[in-house]
Amino acid sequence: MPLTVADIGEAGVIARIGELVSGTWSQSTDVHIGIGDDAAVLNVGGSCVIATDALVEGVHFRRDWVDAQSTGRKLAARNFADIVAMGARPRALLLALVMPADTHVEWLDGFLTGLVAETQRAGAQLIGGDTSAGGSIAAVATAIGEAGSRAVTRAGAGAGDVVAVSGEYGAAAAGLAILNAGRVEPSAAIAAYASPSPNYQLALRAAADASSMIDCSDGLVNDLGHLARASGCDLRITSARVPCATAATLAGVELSRAVDDWVLTGGEDHGFLATFPSLGQVPDGFTVIGEVVAGDGLVWVDDQPWQGVSGYQHFAHANPDARS
Amino acid sequence: MPLTVADIGEAGVIARIGELVSGTWSQSTDVHIGIGDDAAVLNVGGSCVIATDALVEGVHFRRDWVDAQSTGRKLAARNFADIVAMGARPRALLLALVMPADTHVEWLDGFLTGLVAETQRAGAQLIGGDTSAGGSIAAVATAIGEAGSRAVTRAGAGAGDVVAVSGEYGAAAAGLAILNAGRVEPSAAIAAYASPSPNYQLALRAAADASSMIDCSDGLVNDLGHLARASGCDLRITSARVPCATAATLAGVELSRAVDDWVLTGGEDHGFLATFPSLGQVPDGFTVIGEVVAGDGLVWVDDQPWQGVSGYQHFAHANPDARS
Repeated sequence: MPLTVADIGEAGVIARIGELVSGTWSQSTDVHIGIGDDAAVLNVGGSCVIATDALVEGVHFRRDWVDAQSTGRKLAARNFADIVAMGARPRALLLALVMPADTHVEWLDGFLTGLVAETQRAGAQLIGGDTSAGGSIAAVATAIGEAGSRAVTRAGAGAGDVVAVSGEYGAAAAGLAILNAGRVEPSAAIAAYASPSPNYQLALRAAADASSMIDCSDGLVNDLGHLARASGCDLRITSARVPCATAATLAGVELSRAVDDWVLTGGEDHGFLATFPSLGQVPDGFTVIGEVVAGDGLVWVDDQPWQGVSGYQHFAHANPDARS
Repeated sequence: MPLTVADIGEAGVIARIGELVSGTWSQSTDVHIGIGDDAAVLNVGGSCVIATDALVEGVHFRRDWVDAQSTGRKLAARNFADIVAMGARPRALLLALVMPADTHVEWLDGFLTGLVAETQRAGAQLIGGDTSAGGSIAAVATAIGEAGSRAVTRAGAGAGDVVAVSGEYGAAAAGLAILNAGRVEPSAAIAAYASPSPNYQLALRAAADASSMIDCSDGLVNDLGHLARASGCDLRITSARVPCATAATLAGVELSRAVDDWVLTGGEDHGFLATFPSLGQVPDGFTVIGEVVAGDGLVWVDDQPWQGVSGYQHFAHANPDARS
């Protein structure tokens, strides 16, 4: 019988987290008090930037599809992507972990290892959390960052700005489609879905000049809509300019399916979408895909106002692609 | 048919939260960016104090036992109690809410109303969050506070200090026992369990002189053990000095049960347990129950080292009182 969290109990779970984290603890940190008190205490130089995000079993992940380390990495990555998209430096992470008593300790260890590794990659530390029994796994992380000289919001785009994206698109949605089809190749698409790896440093470089920025997690067109509505402008893009991930192309061949939907509406790629006042301010690593024009918050794709389904909606009666 | 969150969709859920919060928004706030961007931005004067805590349906609450507003209040109260127990002033709350698609909008509205009301009572604001579908309700809140001149930890108690508690004990556990027995009286015990109301101001007053402090949520003896081990001392208390809640006494009569277990190990009363260097520093509203002596982290109750079950353990194969 594999060891379960019921065997080690709540105290055992907390002890495992403490052991894992103590190995990563930095001497030079401004974390005064971490795991083990009522709350954590953290020195933050500028304004605090805070985001919280959940991964729910059966909705965001399946244990039989994705290994525990990747799920842990993904939760941390989703949270820190939101922090750097504001132009803020990642500092700390808190984890609230709900799991059934029969969860294998091996899964827990893998999940924590992935979470802590991605937290370190982001330059931050796991400083606290909560754990509880529950019917299925729900992991909620809260990330804290330190704002730069200014926060880069969704609302700063202005007519005449250029629209650019970092990263490649379509691989995560292609990976989910491959899993839904019961296939195992291309593995790069599955990996993109299972364990996205946002380029935090690139987002922070872009933040120096970006007029607006957003973490691309809801589907590119959906996220363009968020920027357009928050900024009160229209965004016009050319779909052929959006970098299509090779893994998405390969998955399209595997499933005999066009990749456009994955690229434009798939979501979870965790590139960054930003606007810049001029072409010269677009940093290396970003690709220009369009422009900002006066308007009321519409998204134009290839000279047509976007009217398709634009991304995953929780609680919806019907969704374009079920997540599980 | 009652309206469900599937009917209003994810965007409808977020819009409802935004409406509720906008009515409570303070002009004088240091919240630069709240709900609606990748992350929230908050000015914090001193060090950031952060805690996260989950309420899980079927583990921490049942919708048929406790109304939605009380559950919302309780989640905020649990989090802010941890913040003030560090001597920090509550500033902000983030909510990650997982719910089934068939959750009634009426429940959601009640839950949010309670959460926001308690957040206001703590002097803080709801500034962001995340929402997701899931098989059962799991609500995770993260509270942020601003540290006082020093953080009051669990680790500062020293031999010769006095041990004192605020609030009354046993009512929350008695309320849970009343609900488990299918009774409806005493309603004050049920209310204490459903919707604790920590005295935040009293904790902040105590923080001025306390050598250590903890939010009493895991059962008094369990929390005494946390202080004792963190401080490396023994704590000796006299059980008769612990203020027993009238509601617990009434529930004991109703169920023909002794109240001692509820008072000493029940948990969720959310009084504050603190140590003070001298009797003269114990503020009004605290009751002295014992003293700190040299030792290795043991708790002595009525001159006996405590060896009983000391509180609820998540994931345990057997628990003293099932929560649901």
